[in-house]
Amino acid sequence: MDYQQKSIAARMSHGGAIFTGLVAEPSNKEALSTYYSPGIAGPCLEIAKDKAKAFDLTIKKNTVAVISDGSAVLGLGNIGPEAALPVMEGKCMLLKHFGGVDGIPIVLDTQDTEEIIETILRIAPTFGGINLEDISAPRCFEIEARLSEKLNIPVFHDDQHGTAICTVAALINALQVVGKEKESVKVVISGAGAGGIAIAKLVRQWGVKNIVMTDSKGVVSCARDNLNEEKQNFCTHDSSQTLAEALVGADVFIGASKANILTPVMVHTMAKDPVVFALANPDPEMHPSLAEQAGVAVMATGRSDYPNQINNVLVFPGLFRGLLDHRIKNVTDEIKLSAAQTLAALVENPRVDCIIPDPFDVKVSPAMAKSVLG
Amino acid sequence: MDYQQKSIAARMSHGGAIFTGLVAEPSNKEALSTYYSPGIAGPCLEIAKDKAKAFDLTIKKNTVAVISDGSAVLGLGNIGPEAALPVMEGKCMLLKHFGGVDGIPIVLDTQDTEEIIETILRIAPTFGGINLEDISAPRCFEIEARLSEKLNIPVFHDDQHGTAICTVAALINALQVVGKEKESVKVVISGAGAGGIAIAKLVRQWGVKNIVMTDSKGVVSCARDNLNEEKQNFCTHDSSQTLAEALVGADVFIGASKANILTPVMVHTMAKDPVVFALANPDPEMHPSLAEQAGVAVMATGRSDYPNQINNVLVFPGLFRGLLDHRIKNVTDEIKLSAAQTLAALVENPRVDCIIPDPFDVKVSPAMAKSVLG
Repeated sequence: MDYQQKSIAARMSHGGAIFTGLVAEPSNKEALSTYYSPGIAGPCLEIAKDKAKAFDLTIKKNTVAVISDGSAVLGLGNIGPEAALPVMEGKCMLLKHFGGVDGIPIVLDTQDTEEIIETILRIAPTFGGINLEDISAPRCFEIEARLSEKLNIPVFHDDQHGTAICTVAALINALQVVGKEKESVKVVISGAGAGGIAIAKLVRQWGVKNIVMTDSKGVVSCARDNLNEEKQNFCTHDSSQTLAEALVGADVFIGASKANILTPVMVHTMAKDPVVFALANPDPEMHPSLAEQAGVAVMATGRSDYPNQINNVLVFPGLFRGLLDHRIKNVTDEIKLSAAQTLAALVENPRVDCIIPDPFDVKVSPAMAKSVLG
Repeated sequence: MDYQQKSIAARMSHGGAIFTGLVAEPSNKEALSTYYSPGIAGPCLEIAKDKAKAFDLTIKKNTVAVISDGSAVLGLGNIGPEAALPVMEGKCMLLKHFGGVDGIPIVLDTQDTEEIIETILRIAPTFGGINLEDISAPRCFEIEARLSEKLNIPVFHDDQHGTAICTVAALINALQVVGKEKESVKVVISGAGAGGIAIAKLVRQWGVKNIVMTDSKGVVSCARDNLNEEKQNFCTHDSSQTLAEALVGADVFIGASKANILTPVMVHTMAKDPVVFALANPDPEMHPSLAEQAGVAVMATGRSDYPNQINNVLVFPGLFRGLLDHRIKNVTDEIKLSAAQTLAALVENPRVDCIIPDPFDVKVSPAMAKSVLG
């Protein structure tokens, strides 16, 4: 039985992967009177006097909504809200297990940017944070930016920033392994969706100067028409047109695109000691079994069955733990870079097969929580 | 320490009264691969092929959203969404403890009827049912009706129908105790808000013909201007103008209004063996300690410290259990009456001090679940 079948089977008894737990059972009059009527008027009146008390006296203290419109789910595409719900539940499991954060999945019956924004604004009083998930680019950029501006709780699009933080952490250690400097390397990023753009932003913020992006049409050239604002920020005046051309002499390939688009032949044209992060899930841009014949110096993927798994679970549970504990209202660029550097530093001696911590390393979540303080 | 203080103290450690529980801990690669990537694509693809599978494979199977705009919270009034959140959490506790239903509280940052409706429609794919709570009349009637029409999951406004089902159950047994027939009694209902109107509807549906309603302006007379549609359905051509006048010769008083508006002097003018349901919370329309001197034959309140507690917890957990288990899409009038009759029948020998089951009676929830089948 493969994992997809196991996943279905595991859900056949409970339905969902999560449930509503109770801090106490209202099994006698004393408990019922305390947790419900008439005692419940106590916390209500406290919060009515001072809204901020909701952060002390309600689930808002420890609860993050995991919200999707089902438009860009895993590698499956636009499968709609109901079909996205298992992923949101899975995310809530990880939030709780690794970060002690209570996640509530919400899937939306709209894919309209304005409607998504107004719906999330209206349900926001319930939550201490918002995790956006599997919302397609470029809508995800505007949705996140406008919600962050209007809400006084942190908004985090994990497909963008979780991926970017993890990737930059791995890049910091990979460049140390191959002995190269961030200021002088050429990084080619394949994929200009939510993940690719966010990676490009954080890679640049960290200090990499030479970044070339490619999308389904080839190199994101400044000469192209109809580039969205995010792509314009990373367009290149380079003469290369295809991914293969862009990779000639490049030091790093980062893929946030699709399976098997990177060939060993292309890697052979890269600079000495090429670094390859093939992050497409479940099938990477180049299968890790080809790394050696391709001459890759450091290889990372999203897969758990090969070394150097770049997995967002390293980031979002601990990060939200820190955001909630310290009542941080905005996930700034400084916080993202601090998180990436903190994650990289958890690997004491970076090696070819160890540039990023293991997802089950218990040091990760507390360190990520602390990283939000900069 | 009173219950309000206890309720605040109980929340100081956890914040909320509920949390996100996990059906399994993703604590190793096997579990992570099953409950998250790559296995999670399995249930996603199943649901993408057939949306209805969400009822088998996600939290939709067993989850009800408990939604409020904070406009009519307990007896506290319009205290806003954040201050309403403790009540929604309490409701979720009761849903789980008594019905095994997973509740998710959602409080809304809008009190506009259209915005509430569209917001709930948009988040609905997540849930197997919607419990509306503490939304003021008359908006609650339209919101419930329009949502019920548009959604393929049950929508239930507990302040209306939970209260009405419980009240009619108690009335069935109270009339048996005093030996009167539903066709011939006069019932005066004080309060024409969500609870009062819903009680009037279900009392009429059960078969009572003579119903007089009163609100803050006195008797709901057909001669009055500006009656909303719901009040028009229950206006009277009676010449009485005040609650006191309406009660002369009445057999039953049902209060869903406010504290201390019913006096022993008024009860003395009622027919022989008067029945008094004083349901205002936490302070009833007449304190039960006055019942004997007032000559009340059967007294019920919402209080747990006196006999005959009319408490919605008798209804909504078991009812939602049944609605979810049988995938019922609409809570029809027939279901409501069936629930009331089922609840009444659980009291084998109705007596003056026992017209309604105890909230902790373990027979209640399974019986209510079954009652949805009519």
